[in-house]
Amino acid sequence: MVKQEAFELEQFIDKYETEVKYNVAETCCYSMSLREIENISGNKFDFDKIANERLAYSYIQGSPGLKKAIGGLYETIGPENLVVTNGGIGANFLSFYTLVGPGDHVIVLSPIYQQLSSVPKMFGADVEIIKLNFEDGFQPNLKQLEAKMRKNTKMIVMNNPNNPTGCIFPQETVLKIVDIARKYGSYILSDEVYRPLFHSLEPADSEPKAIADLYERGISTGSMSKSFSVAGIRLGWIASRDKNVIEGSLIRRDFNMISVGVIDDIIAQYVLQNKEAIMKHNYQLCVQNLVILDDAIRRSKGKLEYVRPKAGTTAFVKVNNKDVSSTMQMCLNLAKHDNVLAVPGETFNYPGFLRIGFANRREDLINGLEKILAYLNV
Amino acid sequence: MVKQEAFELEQFIDKYETEVKYNVAETCCYSMSLREIENISGNKFDFDKIANERLAYSYIQGSPGLKKAIGGLYETIGPENLVVTNGGIGANFLSFYTLVGPGDHVIVLSPIYQQLSSVPKMFGADVEIIKLNFEDGFQPNLKQLEAKMRKNTKMIVMNNPNNPTGCIFPQETVLKIVDIARKYGSYILSDEVYRPLFHSLEPADSEPKAIADLYERGISTGSMSKSFSVAGIRLGWIASRDKNVIEGSLIRRDFNMISVGVIDDIIAQYVLQNKEAIMKHNYQLCVQNLVILDDAIRRSKGKLEYVRPKAGTTAFVKVNNKDVSSTMQMCLNLAKHDNVLAVPGETFNYPGFLRIGFANRREDLINGLEKILAYLNV
Repeated sequence: MVKQEAFELEQFIDKYETEVKYNVAETCCYSMSLREIENISGNKFDFDKIANERLAYSYIQGSPGLKKAIGGLYETIGPENLVVTNGGIGANFLSFYTLVGPGDHVIVLSPIYQQLSSVPKMFGADVEIIKLNFEDGFQPNLKQLEAKMRKNTKMIVMNNPNNPTGCIFPQETVLKIVDIARKYGSYILSDEVYRPLFHSLEPADSEPKAIADLYERGISTGSMSKSFSVAGIRLGWIASRDKNVIEGSLIRRDFNMISVGVIDDIIAQYVLQNKEAIMKHNYQLCVQNLVILDDAIRRSKGKLEYVRPKAGTTAFVKVNNKDVSSTMQMCLNLAKHDNVLAVPGETFNYPGFLRIGFANRREDLINGLEKILAYLNV
Repeated sequence: MVKQEAFELEQFIDKYETEVKYNVAETCCYSMSLREIENISGNKFDFDKIANERLAYSYIQGSPGLKKAIGGLYETIGPENLVVTNGGIGANFLSFYTLVGPGDHVIVLSPIYQQLSSVPKMFGADVEIIKLNFEDGFQPNLKQLEAKMRKNTKMIVMNNPNNPTGCIFPQETVLKIVDIARKYGSYILSDEVYRPLFHSLEPADSEPKAIADLYERGISTGSMSKSFSVAGIRLGWIASRDKNVIEGSLIRRDFNMISVGVIDDIIAQYVLQNKEAIMKHNYQLCVQNLVILDDAIRRSKGKLEYVRPKAGTTAFVKVNNKDVSSTMQMCLNLAKHDNVLAVPGETFNYPGFLRIGFANRREDLINGLEKILAYLNV
């Protein structure tokens, strides 16, 4: 069989998710029902359409209306630049399936969602991980990146906004990474499933554009799951102006997914038609919940530190190692004894950190953080 | 990049499907809407449930109700023996992803859906194809199969009922294949997406049980798309009593799909609750439509021959080569000039054949076959 590492993060969450009361491991903006979206947006969903839709494969590559709505999230992306997939997970998988294999060098800027390093490795690529540091605000050292580039560097992989840190690579940083990639003809795969959730930028921060809009070999992967609150429809996409990426992905897609669900296609169109109302709601959720996290960090008196998130739904909180020798053990204890699910940094290869999802329900965050502070004797 | 053959069949269909009027390339039992299933079954679908369902990832591995309903299609399969996937295509892909790679020998009984030979090849396995013959009623020569077995034969792959032939391997044949596989410790992956559509068995035919029920290393892949008329929900599954298959698939599933859509999960439960009514309807559809195909074969006066389908939705019709030198060219002409989409045998590596899907709308089949007969000057 091909070698596949275990997915530390997902396995940790799967194991405890249904048992705990306070979930601060969630990365989605609190998921909504269609009724809730109707209430938030003031626009009715057409349930008759679902009742009468013939449940055939229908548009194999996604409906024209869906592709148009997704294209509307970008500046330079038309239907011909899109591949609709089974979630962001499917978009990332299909990108690697299409582009990397033995003989290819892939650079991954970490910490990052584990799929983004494990899958290219499984497909046989030589994966090199560059670890970004808390002390640098999880920003890349561009000289170090350039020094790692090789003739066969097929791809640079990043996640912007980032899970787990909630940091962004601002526009000027992304442009410099593009310059480096272009010299080597390398693709940049940017997992952008947390776009456009730039809820807490500071005045000096330049919001980055999507990599597909910035770079001719840029691949933006996106999803309805995180920012748009509907992970329960499995719908994501690849956006790229590179023809080989799109054509190659469409060929391989016939082998591992064929099409997305027709009802999910209809729902995604409805959600994207109401994106302003949903994003406004989720911005508020994130901004208000971040205040709760700020307060917990302050009250911890140095036992917890963070680089304050500017976007996305997660913070990567550093735990003072005088208090806790193993964040893995801490999270196991929290799950078993305190009804709290937090993700240990070990699942990102960053022991000493906790990932805190702050876009879930307010009560989960408040109670989860209280339990964490109590665990630290604060 | 990893090597991936083009998917001849899907690309041929994608290219012409939306242009033609009479589609005899379809392999699904004519797809239904929820309203149609309500009418056929007499049972209301709960649309309020869809309206109020929070669109979260929900049950990552599929809901307990869904797993119970799928288990009900087997004799020995419980929830712990199932992996829910994005369609049958996802079930097959995930099985290969989990089990085969460089150093593994895989035997594929052909003609077969191309995914089932191309994907193990892509994952690096040594794939050996055994071509079954029209003259043998597309039945395997078991001595030939046994002679091909090696110490490293990881898997035998078959499709039962078969697409494109509509033939079955009867119970006694499957049991003999199990005996051969067991000697070598090989898995048998049986794509069973056309179960339980055994609509035209003859009295002497023994209906085969699912491979997961027959063999401890059997892997049955299944789907809601074909027999159950709802390809538009992307929902399939792997059924196996082999723990390594299930555990390995669950690990890899986190890397390429995470979960299926929550609404698709709800719809699949509803469809399976009404499976008797739906299957009765689809049996009738197949039986009645096969008469139309019988008639066309008879009227062709030897220009068309078939092994009469016993199950599934397709027939593999042999075209007399005195009349047609290339079935690929014939199908291109039919698509371009006669508004008919039929699949050329070339896409299965069987030139000289046409695949005729007979479970689509009656008018597609009647008109499609008339045009084919006219093309042959009948």
